[in-house]
Amino acid sequence: MEPYPAWTFLVSFLAMTSSCDGGKVLVFPVDGSHWLNMKIIVEALHSQGHQITVLRSSSSWYISEFSPYYTSITIIQEQSQPIESQNFMSSFLKRSMEINKNDGSLWAFFELYWNFFNLLVQNQQVVANFTSSIFENTTLIGDLNKTGYDLFLTDPTFPGGVLLAHYLQLPLVYNVRWLFSGEAHLAVAPSPVSYIPICFSHNSDKMDFFQRIRNMIHYIMVLYRDYYVSRPPYQALCDRYFGNNVNVMSLTQKADLWLMRVDFTFEFPRPTMPNVIYVGGFQSKPSKPLSSEFEEFVQSSGEHGVIVMTLGTLLSDLGHELTESFASAFASLPQKVVWRHVGKRPATLGNNTMLVEWMPQNDLLGHPKTKVFVTHGGTNGLYEAIYHGVPVLGIPLIFDQHDNVVHLKARGVAEMLDVTKLNADSLTSALKNILDPEKPYKQNMLELSQLHHDQPMKPLDNAVFWMEYVMRHKGAAHLRTESYNLPWYAYHCLDVIAVLVAFVVLLISIFIWVSCKCLFTCVMKTKKSKRE
Amino acid sequence: MEPYPAWTFLVSFLAMTSSCDGGKVLVFPVDGSHWLNMKIIVEALHSQGHQITVLRSSSSWYISEFSPYYTSITIIQEQSQPIESQNFMSSFLKRSMEINKNDGSLWAFFELYWNFFNLLVQNQQVVANFTSSIFENTTLIGDLNKTGYDLFLTDPTFPGGVLLAHYLQLPLVYNVRWLFSGEAHLAVAPSPVSYIPICFSHNSDKMDFFQRIRNMIHYIMVLYRDYYVSRPPYQALCDRYFGNNVNVMSLTQKADLWLMRVDFTFEFPRPTMPNVIYVGGFQSKPSKPLSSEFEEFVQSSGEHGVIVMTLGTLLSDLGHELTESFASAFASLPQKVVWRHVGKRPATLGNNTMLVEWMPQNDLLGHPKTKVFVTHGGTNGLYEAIYHGVPVLGIPLIFDQHDNVVHLKARGVAEMLDVTKLNADSLTSALKNILDPEKPYKQNMLELSQLHHDQPMKPLDNAVFWMEYVMRHKGAAHLRTESYNLPWYAYHCLDVIAVLVAFVVLLISIFIWVSCKCLFTCVMKTKKSKRE
Repeated sequence: MEPYPAWTFLVSFLAMTSSCDGGKVLVFPVDGSHWLNMKIIVEALHSQGHQITVLRSSSSWYISEFSPYYTSITIIQEQSQPIESQNFMSSFLKRSMEINKNDGSLWAFFELYWNFFNLLVQNQQVVANFTSSIFENTTLIGDLNKTGYDLFLTDPTFPGGVLLAHYLQLPLVYNVRWLFSGEAHLAVAPSPVSYIPICFSHNSDKMDFFQRIRNMIHYIMVLYRDYYVSRPPYQALCDRYFGNNVNVMSLTQKADLWLMRVDFTFEFPRPTMPNVIYVGGFQSKPSKPLSSEFEEFVQSSGEHGVIVMTLGTLLSDLGHELTESFASAFASLPQKVVWRHVGKRPATLGNNTMLVEWMPQNDLLGHPKTKVFVTHGGTNGLYEAIYHGVPVLGIPLIFDQHDNVVHLKARGVAEMLDVTKLNADSLTSALKNILDPEKPYKQNMLELSQLHHDQPMKPLDNAVFWMEYVMRHKGAAHLRTESYNLPWYAYHCLDVIAVLVAFVVLLISIFIWVSCKCLFTCVMKTKKSKRE
Repeated sequence: MEPYPAWTFLVSFLAMTSSCDGGKVLVFPVDGSHWLNMKIIVEALHSQGHQITVLRSSSSWYISEFSPYYTSITIIQEQSQPIESQNFMSSFLKRSMEINKNDGSLWAFFELYWNFFNLLVQNQQVVANFTSSIFENTTLIGDLNKTGYDLFLTDPTFPGGVLLAHYLQLPLVYNVRWLFSGEAHLAVAPSPVSYIPICFSHNSDKMDFFQRIRNMIHYIMVLYRDYYVSRPPYQALCDRYFGNNVNVMSLTQKADLWLMRVDFTFEFPRPTMPNVIYVGGFQSKPSKPLSSEFEEFVQSSGEHGVIVMTLGTLLSDLGHELTESFASAFASLPQKVVWRHVGKRPATLGNNTMLVEWMPQNDLLGHPKTKVFVTHGGTNGLYEAIYHGVPVLGIPLIFDQHDNVVHLKARGVAEMLDVTKLNADSLTSALKNILDPEKPYKQNMLELSQLHHDQPMKPLDNAVFWMEYVMRHKGAAHLRTESYNLPWYAYHCLDVIAVLVAFVVLLISIFIWVSCKCLFTCVMKTKKSKRE
């Protein structure tokens, strides 16, 4: 008797344990803060035995040329991207705060975004030029082709990597939350504007009629940004290398997998696609013990516990008036406060407040004494708060931060203050509210944290599993829908509806015509018989 | 120094290992073939230490009163459901074969479905009456409430369980592929008719214009079936127990999780929702060694291998002519054939064919000598074929079988024959085609099988994980979208679009009015000055 081959048992086992040893991964990252989370994925891939090559620009701010985790290929770039520079962000924040403070006109708001869109066009053009220079570098392209990469990993916020991956014909995976057009889901999955809050609209998934109007206006801005701001800089490249009817969006939608940097403890529930994998919070990790300086300060808070406060690394100095409001609000509380503050020491600072230029944020949030996290609402910080179960006071400043805090507020785990309107009283009152043991913020956050942790796999392991999946199967075309291949009128069945309606109208017309004819004949016959 | 609590580490670990020991699960199954896969889930839950109670009807055909895996509560039911009886299915098949054979008129097709819909109404009415009798049984309801179940598990094809779960206010999970209205996705996720093939349309996800028209007509039939066939029988119950604006569909959409009995090796890629978990193929299991009788026969096939043939348990006898065609086609092949056949022995049966009334289907499909699976296209059989990597010749008979085979044909792992038109020649030719080592069927099926096995968790473990997840968190409301709470015009933003269009029209009108006014004034002035 022939022995049974064990492959049917083995495959399942291999799927859990095999890790495409020696897979070669080409990474085309986005610079700046986006690199911080890409680096975590690069390190995780490296720890699984993959060889990683990172394409970096010579003008990169964050991406090191040398690393134990990857080899880099540096491409000479003379222009650098203006966005995400301290200057741009500071002036954008200043202007938007001014507008908000004075209940600015619709015109001022549009002017701000007009300038922002103009800057985006410049950025996309810089990336398009950079990508073009790679395409033209035949030696580099030859080398990349020769290496035989198993996977192309990129962040499509600036879609240079998307174009290169298609040029090299490699399986493509995104580490993504944003596209050049807006939130990434809008490009990959059906997104009814009726309950999917559009970024910058400050809506939750429960909207009244006026909020839905606001949402629709923001959606129209997304469409404008997509078609008129982000696509044009890449069109010459698409025309030259990919032929007719191809644009940067149609190439973007061809990715094998989208590793989405959210999960549904943060994101509002929404339609999704089989090739979207949720890895929100993959950056989070258990806290480590604090240094003795921090530990002693934190322990000295006794039963009252500690408030941890930071408004991010890029926009820390909000001006004298606000800084004093923070200081005096903190001074009025029985809690201790660790405050990441760069700038002049506030005059009203209390003894309970420790000013630091850098803090071990994750370790502080994981400390059992920490009661509230005061934050600008960057995703990394919010996920650390969810991970460690610490309720949030959000003071959003710029970009998606307002929307991020809205997500947590809707779950009853955060309160939000408008930075243009807050003062010591409103800050004290908001903090007391969250600290009140009668209020459900802490309990809600613990439950949310449990949901976040209760997954079949940890988010980072999940990300690695699916990247290796794409390597094992040389893509994941069976998870990508046909929707992207349809023109818009066919997608919405407008042609079919037109034909069916025409057919029904035709039937009705024939019916009416025949009825009239019969009626006419009858009437004529009656008249005739009457005459006779 | 206070030691760190380990809960942040523990939660993740617990999520992987804890199994809500002693969870109490109330199961409201659908009878007939649907029970066969529900039973597998019941057994899996039992193996994890949960206590399961099954609500069964006294007129049940399949659901035993006594089982080592569950306790049952038997509810007296005088009427039984006419659908899925041998008589109904045989006559439906006979009539639809007649229509197909004679290239039947559209009228005959509508008549067939009209009768089918009428039968469905009767069935839903029987289930509605059965459910009503449970609601009225205050002792039973009291007992069920007192037990304190952690989870309600049901198959919503007949939605009695949906109503009862809401009445008892229990977390609700579906084991589902079909709803009372049609394929379950249509009720839970956006389903653009342009690339989502509607059941009975026989379309794949790539449709030409005429196929899209056909798809739309089938979609209209689904809507009809939903609104006019399936909802009315339950409306009295909804009105009485759940108040205004509630119908059986709105209750159905409130489930916590949908364990969908497909995955994307079978289902075409499509939009989905966060609370839809794919557990397709959870029934499949490794093959066991064959009995000596089967093993000897299979081994005697030598290098040619074996064809396994069955057309299901309910509709096995297709008449003399077809049976002889099968027999003579098989006789002309060098392969051995195991044929599950109930009825008279065909005159043209070859020596290479073994007739059996029952076969160990999974063990045969898992045998390395098996080359082709000839099947009617039931989902269970197709998933066993995918699991074991055996290419398929589909001869669909009834219900969803045609569509099921279309799914596999589109992936290049199956061929299909029309039962009303096949003969010995077409059968031989199709089998030779699939058996041809030059053709890619086998290779494609092995690759599909690898994709099916390559999942982070086995489908049945995944199902159990998510049911326990719902028990741990007393529901999964955070995964359910707001879409179901919106009226249709708001969902499609028609009100918002109307207001925005009206606003734009108003602006244009004002502009035109002002322009005309100015022009008129100018003209008058010019005339006046000319006169002067």
